[in-house]
Amino acid sequence: MKYLQKKRIVIKLSGSIFSLAEKDDQHNNNYYNSFKQYSDILISLTPNVQLIVITGGGSIARLYINFARKLGLDEASLDLLGIAISRVNAKLLIASLGHYAYPEVPISLDDVDRFVESNKIIVSGGLHPGQSTNATSALIAEKTRASEFINATDVNGIYDSDPRTNKNAQLFDKIELGKLLHILLKESSMAGEYDLLDIVALKVIERSKIRTKVILSNPINISNTIEGRKFIGTELVL
Amino acid sequence: MKYLQKKRIVIKLSGSIFSLAEKDDQHNNNYYNSFKQYSDILISLTPNVQLIVITGGGSIARLYINFARKLGLDEASLDLLGIAISRVNAKLLIASLGHYAYPEVPISLDDVDRFVESNKIIVSGGLHPGQSTNATSALIAEKTRASEFINATDVNGIYDSDPRTNKNAQLFDKIELGKLLHILLKESSMAGEYDLLDIVALKVIERSKIRTKVILSNPINISNTIEGRKFIGTELVL
Amino acid sequence: MKYLQKKRIVIKLSGSIFSLAEKDDQHNNNYYNSFKQYSDILISLTPNVQLIVITGGGSIARLYINFARKLGLDEASLDLLGIAISRVNAKLLIASLGHYAYPEVPISLDDVDRFVESNKIIVSGGLHPGQSTNATSALIAEKTRASEFINATDVNGIYDSDPRTNKNAQLFDKIELGKLLHILLKESSMAGEYDLLDIVALKVIERSKIRTKVILSNPINISNTIEGRKFIGTELVL
Amino acid sequence: MKYLQKKRIVIKLSGSIFSLAEKDDQHNNNYYNSFKQYSDILISLTPNVQLIVITGGGSIARLYINFARKLGLDEASLDLLGIAISRVNAKLLIASLGHYAYPEVPISLDDVDRFVESNKIIVSGGLHPGQSTNATSALIAEKTRASEFINATDVNGIYDSDPRTNKNAQLFDKIELGKLLHILLKESSMAGEYDLLDIVALKVIERSKIRTKVILSNPINISNTIEGRKFIGTELVL
Amino acid sequence: MKYLQKKRIVIKLSGSIFSLAEKDDQHNNNYYNSFKQYSDILISLTPNVQLIVITGGGSIARLYINFARKLGLDEASLDLLGIAISRVNAKLLIASLGHYAYPEVPISLDDVDRFVESNKIIVSGGLHPGQSTNATSALIAEKTRASEFINATDVNGIYDSDPRTNKNAQLFDKIELGKLLHILLKESSMAGEYDLLDIVALKVIERSKIRTKVILSNPINISNTIEGRKFIGTELVL
Amino acid sequence: MKYLQKKRIVIKLSGSIFSLAEKDDQHNNNYYNSFKQYSDILISLTPNVQLIVITGGGSIARLYINFARKLGLDEASLDLLGIAISRVNAKLLIASLGHYAYPEVPISLDDVDRFVESNKIIVSGGLHPGQSTNATSALIAEKTRASEFINATDVNGIYDSDPRTNKNAQLFDKIELGKLLHILLKESSMAGEYDLLDIVALKVIERSKIRTKVILSNPINISNTIEGRKFIGTELVL
Repeated sequence: MKYLQKKRIVIKLSGSIFSLAEKDDQHNNNYYNSFKQYSDILISLTPNVQLIVITGGGSIARLYINFARKLGLDEASLDLLGIAISRVNAKLLIASLGHYAYPEVPISLDDVDRFVESNKIIVSGGLHPGQSTNATSALIAEKTRASEFINATDVNGIYDSDPRTNKNAQLFDKIELGKLLHILLKESSMAGEYDLLDIVALKVIERSKIRTKVILSNPINISNTIEGRKFIGTELVL
Repeated sequence: MKYLQKKRIVIKLSGSIFSLAEKDDQHNNNYYNSFKQYSDILISLTPNVQLIVITGGGSIARLYINFARKLGLDEASLDLLGIAISRVNAKLLIASLGHYAYPEVPISLDDVDRFVESNKIIVSGGLHPGQSTNATSALIAEKTRASEFINATDVNGIYDSDPRTNKNAQLFDKIELGKLLHILLKESSMAGEYDLLDIVALKVIERSKIRTKVILSNPINISNTIEGRKFIGTELVL
Repeated sequence: MKYLQKKRIVIKLSGSIFSLAEKDDQHNNNYYNSFKQYSDILISLTPNVQLIVITGGGSIARLYINFARKLGLDEASLDLLGIAISRVNAKLLIASLGHYAYPEVPISLDDVDRFVESNKIIVSGGLHPGQSTNATSALIAEKTRASEFINATDVNGIYDSDPRTNKNAQLFDKIELGKLLHILLKESSMAGEYDLLDIVALKVIERSKIRTKVILSNPINISNTIEGRKFIGTELVL
Repeated sequence: MKYLQKKRIVIKLSGSIFSLAEKDDQHNNNYYNSFKQYSDILISLTPNVQLIVITGGGSIARLYINFARKLGLDEASLDLLGIAISRVNAKLLIASLGHYAYPEVPISLDDVDRFVESNKIIVSGGLHPGQSTNATSALIAEKTRASEFINATDVNGIYDSDPRTNKNAQLFDKIELGKLLHILLKESSMAGEYDLLDIVALKVIERSKIRTKVILSNPINISNTIEGRKFIGTELVL
Repeated sequence: MKYLQKKRIVIKLSGSIFSLAEKDDQHNNNYYNSFKQYSDILISLTPNVQLIVITGGGSIARLYINFARKLGLDEASLDLLGIAISRVNAKLLIASLGHYAYPEVPISLDDVDRFVESNKIIVSGGLHPGQSTNATSALIAEKTRASEFINATDVNGIYDSDPRTNKNAQLFDKIELGKLLHILLKESSMAGEYDLLDIVALKVIERSKIRTKVILSNPINISNTIEGRKFIGTELVL
Repeated sequence: MKYLQKKRIVIKLSGSIFSLAEKDDQHNNNYYNSFKQYSDILISLTPNVQLIVITGGGSIARLYINFARKLGLDEASLDLLGIAISRVNAKLLIASLGHYAYPEVPISLDDVDRFVESNKIIVSGGLHPGQSTNATSALIAEKTRASEFINATDVNGIYDSDPRTNKNAQLFDKIELGKLLHILLKESSMAGEYDLLDIVALKVIERSKIRTKVILSNPINISNTIEGRKFIGTELVL
């Protein structure tokens, strides 16, 4: 029995592309156009790879989480709120991808495993409280034996310090996983505030030697990364 | 075997109380205070009645639905998006009600039926595409044999014409169900735009003779309605 | 990636073809032969279209509903009984279609959406209380982007008055949706008694502009309708 | 912690009490009255015991099974049809028992185990293909540690030969389980035709030493059996 | 529409091949090699047939069952423990079969029915308490219309008496099903101790005329049996 | 409405108490006695607190994981194997606790949340791949607003170095969470090898300020810890 499987790539999309807002029409038009561009790029990549896209919660999730925290909701339940919104975002992307995407949002690793059999694009939100969508993405890459995990973020990649506060922060071209682990240990883990690759993600990447890149999220850069061209971002050295 | 069951009342809460927004801090403080007042009133009513609260999708649902419609999503799936957000809103209210509420959001009528056995406040979002949260509320009232269905809305009750466009619109104190049916037939049923009591809700109310009031949503008016005092709103004559 | 999707057609089959009864053997033989003819026609159509068949509850459902209503069961639960029987009927049709049918009966719109990926015939019963199988069929047509919705009934189509009581009732060749809406408003909605196209079905058809025909249910007429030949029935003008 | 658990009794009700039929009104009235008497007796017993009632498929199940077998459905799927109808029958009994019954029909042994925590009457249909409702009843008795399993049938109890064909058949007052096992081995196991206690039921009864009686099904005889009075039926000697 | 379905064969694998143990390294190496040989043989057979493999609980299941019985667990729950372990064993085999196997373990007959649509090897554990994996295998063969059921055991086939205690026990080449039924009636049904083909399995085999062989479990003998060569084992005469 | 909730305590039990093995009878007797002592202590504590017990996978899980890793199973799936076994262990403990325990093993945080409503002892295994049972325990403590999390381990508490290799390792009476975080960062995260409190557990403990103790697992020490007496173990300083 011959069995030809396209290679699989896991992409975690920054929640910011799902950040709907009640702003003026011009904003919404721009936003809509940008969203379509992402969707078009993903479709254009499907002849060669099977994509598994993980969507974050974005600003709407933060809105709910902040409000619910004020109401006294426990942190585990706040995580669940964020996951619920990330799944709505996943449905939005599925809507845009049309029949190129598998129609259902998985709610467990086992679901992902079954859905990839369709050979379509799989779009997942978060899966479990206490676990960032980054860590979930790494687990999904592990479970589906993806050849690569691409984390598309709102920054250019991994810096030696926070580029939002330090003008002289240096972007790494490549960084060793062990070194990154130490940098990340200082981060907090309040729901909705995970950044880049957290510790669990790194541990998973380490144990399964998953080829990983943290890149700037925009359609062209994603396409460049997946098709092996030069890209803006940082590659992990395993 | 003596078995004392508190009487049950179904309340559909206008989605507007869940309309989180990225506005200024003052807005959010006011909003938070208002939300807490609703929650406090619901808790204060629990010694005498078992409440079953149905939450709408509000402005966040509209945000998603409008965007997804532009992406070309079919109307049934738009309904599902709205339901997903209404469930997140339900979780928010459960968070605020604490242990007075049953911890889980039902996803079917059968779930509602099991959860009411807990004697706690049940909080549900929408249940099914093609069906407004009003119709769902009526069905839930029917299934749980609730003694009353209160529809808390953003207007004072049922008018003879749209009060937003007609300054002279008259508020009904009472209205016969048959008469209301004819008024509503002119309404459209695009996802997220159902108004007051739609036709399915009325048909359910009619077939099971459910005592129904359409009232202005605010904590004091809800309390007045449930405890049999004078209230702002319209009662259906069955 | 080329992706060729057969066009999809949703057919609601009158519950009467599932009306098993403890009658004499000759009756049962005739009934069996008729059932097989339906099944054979559906199979013969599959090379060109993907069929999604919705089965009603028929006389067995009415038997249960009438008895349970006498026992005092609420209307929402009566709907659930009817749905349960319609799903048994769906299994019966799947049995007859053999491997041309997807083996499982969907219990939600999401299930339908996943099952159509199989390219096989999907057979569904009712999905939700308070919603006729007609309305459910329209929603399924909407969700699966079917090119047509055919409602196969026990009458020749839509008349200007009830042909069972009015000998001079006129059959419409075509009817405008708005006109039909007004005719239907007079109907009751007791479980198991929905007729032809109810209001929710029409609202769904309207919002998504679904091409719709109400036809006389028999194998040849169904085949004629689907393959674009002359048929006995009424077409909706959208 | 004091924890007082009412003793539990499992009753398998003959499917014949669920044998709805399109007969004349007088028949239906008699049938309705009989059904209510069963329901009333079960309610009257609840102050002292927790009942777990298992409902058969009855004549409607046979109708479906016979028709589907003619359509060529496999035997395992025929079992599933029978189970589906037995669950509808269970819903009918729950409707009649009102709030004395747990509102949901279990679909697994684990469900039964959770539902009994409610201390209400549990009503179950069949659970698994290839297993008679008798065997399922014995398993449920085992899992819930019921003190007794009563099989209410259409005959007076266990005879030394088939009383329908042999006028001189002798009714056993008591019978040893081993002896019964040999009698039953001659029976066929076509779906819907299991009789009295089949082999799996007996094996379960044997391994867990479950006190078992096969009795004539009528309300008074059921009441007599449960309350320890003289009854028409056969007791198993373990 | 041409539709080519590979013939399906159900194989029940003796639990002994899953009997992990904390023994010395040499044992574990031998065991690993043996397990891989089974897995390789199954893969080598897939071009011609679709295999449905049922895994037993083996020694680990017995370990848990014995311990839990001592703790006072009821027999139905002991069955459930055995099923849980058989499913873990199924996952182990899936791991070894890689992408030749469907990734999920079915938990109901309906699951099996859907999963076989993938045309991959399906691996199932037990499905229901009170039912041996042999009986479950027969039901699965019935439901999936498999052309054959092969029961791979730790003995050479069916003997006229227990070969473990009787040196002169004779191996049957073929045995009539009725004869086998009488032999098996003497067996006990304590959880975890079912042997060869139990009564329920035989009843299912009988009602659906399933071609059945009880064979010695080893990779070569399995391959010989499936490919129609001479094998060590007993064939049932239906 | 008065509502009295016993305080809740989460206990993670070392997998070693579930380490069944095919050893000699004396071993199994000792093991059985020890297991019963744990169970008796947990029951004896229930009048005052509601316990939520999390069970590890123990030696059987390691057996499966090691074997499956050799077969080439990915690490996420290995985690799932460990979770499956931890759930079997949970069932074993439920068996021993009898009606003091809720009968079902939760498979999600939401399940835990519903099950605690029963006021019975809840017994859970692992919940999610990539997450140790320690981290899961911390999340459960967070979600159920438990007043304390007790991690019962095979060692006396937290040392400044590994006591298995360093004879002079010092046991901490108390340790600051930040300090512990740095110690743990050196640990690997291969499935089945998580130790004491891993990083995710600590992050959860930190964000929700959960009172936490790592203690030596034996029945008396557990009882001492819960009832506020002197215990062998280390308390976290938050």
